[in-house]
Amino acid sequence: MNHHFATRLHAAIRLKKTPALVGLDPRFDWLPDEVVTSARRNHSDPQAITAAAFEEFCIRIIDVVAPLVPAVKPQAAFFEEYGPDGCLALARVMRYARAQGLIVIADAKRGDIGTTAEAYARAYLAGADPQAAPWSADALTVNPYLGSDTLEPFVKVANERGAGVYVLVKTSNPGAATFQDRLSGGQTLYRRVADVVERLSASSADADGYGCVGAVVGATYPAELVELRAAMPHVPLLIPGYGSQGGTAADVAGGFDSRGLGALVNNSRGINFAYRSGPFAAEFGPAKWEAAVEAATKQMIVDLATQTTAGALSVRL
Amino acid sequence: MNHHFATRLHAAIRLKKTPALVGLDPRFDWLPDEVVTSARRNHSDPQAITAAAFEEFCIRIIDVVAPLVPAVKPQAAFFEEYGPDGCLALARVMRYARAQGLIVIADAKRGDIGTTAEAYARAYLAGADPQAAPWSADALTVNPYLGSDTLEPFVKVANERGAGVYVLVKTSNPGAATFQDRLSGGQTLYRRVADVVERLSASSADADGYGCVGAVVGATYPAELVELRAAMPHVPLLIPGYGSQGGTAADVAGGFDSRGLGALVNNSRGINFAYRSGPFAAEFGPAKWEAAVEAATKQMIVDLATQTTAGALSVRL
Repeated sequence: MNHHFATRLHAAIRLKKTPALVGLDPRFDWLPDEVVTSARRNHSDPQAITAAAFEEFCIRIIDVVAPLVPAVKPQAAFFEEYGPDGCLALARVMRYARAQGLIVIADAKRGDIGTTAEAYARAYLAGADPQAAPWSADALTVNPYLGSDTLEPFVKVANERGAGVYVLVKTSNPGAATFQDRLSGGQTLYRRVADVVERLSASSADADGYGCVGAVVGATYPAELVELRAAMPHVPLLIPGYGSQGGTAADVAGGFDSRGLGALVNNSRGINFAYRSGPFAAEFGPAKWEAAVEAATKQMIVDLATQTTAGALSVRL
Repeated sequence: MNHHFATRLHAAIRLKKTPALVGLDPRFDWLPDEVVTSARRNHSDPQAITAAAFEEFCIRIIDVVAPLVPAVKPQAAFFEEYGPDGCLALARVMRYARAQGLIVIADAKRGDIGTTAEAYARAYLAGADPQAAPWSADALTVNPYLGSDTLEPFVKVANERGAGVYVLVKTSNPGAATFQDRLSGGQTLYRRVADVVERLSASSADADGYGCVGAVVGATYPAELVELRAAMPHVPLLIPGYGSQGGTAADVAGGFDSRGLGALVNNSRGINFAYRSGPFAAEFGPAKWEAAVEAATKQMIVDLATQTTAGALSVRL
């Protein structure tokens, strides 16, 4: 088994022939009734009920998407909202996803200095050995504001364990520009962060040319995505903002190299809750929520294949 | 009971007559032997042993410092490193600190967009009612990189619950300048963040003139601390970097207003592990580790009182 994060990631992308990433963003109020009913049967404490329902919901999504996509991205915040029970559910969901052969990206956006940063890295970055950390992630999202020296402990642990780090560069929210677009000597802050990320990743580049340090770049800023793909040739991208946030397959096209590699495109709500709204709600509804998850995932895969160079994956690999 | 975070914070500072903040940064390798032995007696799983030892260590520190200081600041990373068991220990430690009348600042440096940010806020910001969140914090540290729109959900929940938010502005690490000091139109990024924080806090100013949105400014940058105190008149400061990181009482002097209010000065390692190194190690040693915690805390209080306007607290209040 290859130990390198980008190599393992691209092997999974080649195997599934798609860069589609399924976010796991459980919201209690939106869960199918049967999932909540089942959790209530076994638990009485409200936090324990929610945690159990989140665990079942995510595991059943994983069962549907594991044959279809290379990776999943659980959002830590939605689990933490329900306390230590939620944290345990997150750990179980991540371990289950790893056992189904999925690459797991913990979207926890951590960041701190020195040995504190290293503690976060050890908490989440299991890397090649799923047992190596309590939360069994292949990669973790990280916030760069504190400075480049605070990224290094994450990169060190990632290199040791065959794990990856995705640094926030240009985020998908409407207010991303407030700080990230500030110009200094003609260069935006996000581009300065990108230069640091490229430097940190280049030294660990694998045979495909990608290192263990990735970058988060929102689908909602397609011009910046093209700029950043060029500025960070050794950096795997994680592209949020497709679907519910408004990004299209055409918008994310600039994130891929000519082989269709170098990027994952995330969709959370549009897949998790496809039974509630969007094009599949009427056809499936609550009783067939897993079929809605499957249909939405397959539609995203086709959408990405036909409108981006990610289509090269199905032709050439 | 007053509901406003800054009012509650300053009441605690006035009561204890000091702005000293005790960080809770447990490290397994540095724990006193008796604490580890006791945890091993009751647990067999390595993570459960560490979590139990952290809980006992922090609770015994709280017992020593609760009569002396207004607030404690547990570092989430060190607990998360030990998985869901660690998260549960953190929740218990925070709840215990609240029960002893301490203001609790969760140093978790969270940050995300929209409803995800709100989920983090609901996880940590208990505010005036200790039962209102699974982790019972009065305030939470937050990272601004994603943009000002991503701070607003935290501020909204803080206002609702009588809680506080401390936004990272100028951090204490050596590499803080990489991004934070970048000039745009003659203004640094940290100063731009400070302007946003001041705006967010001014609208919730209490009778003392302080709002619920605070700022983290490192003791290791005293000139910037003076600049930022002036730029954010309505913003309570959290000043890390005193002690082990090299900041002195003279360095933090610029963080206070003329009444000795408006800032907390943190010391973690220098108090938690005073028995291992520093001026009290020889006198106390492992057998009297709690006495070393007490002596180091009292020394910090005297140091701050004699060399800063925080001395005004003991004279005037």
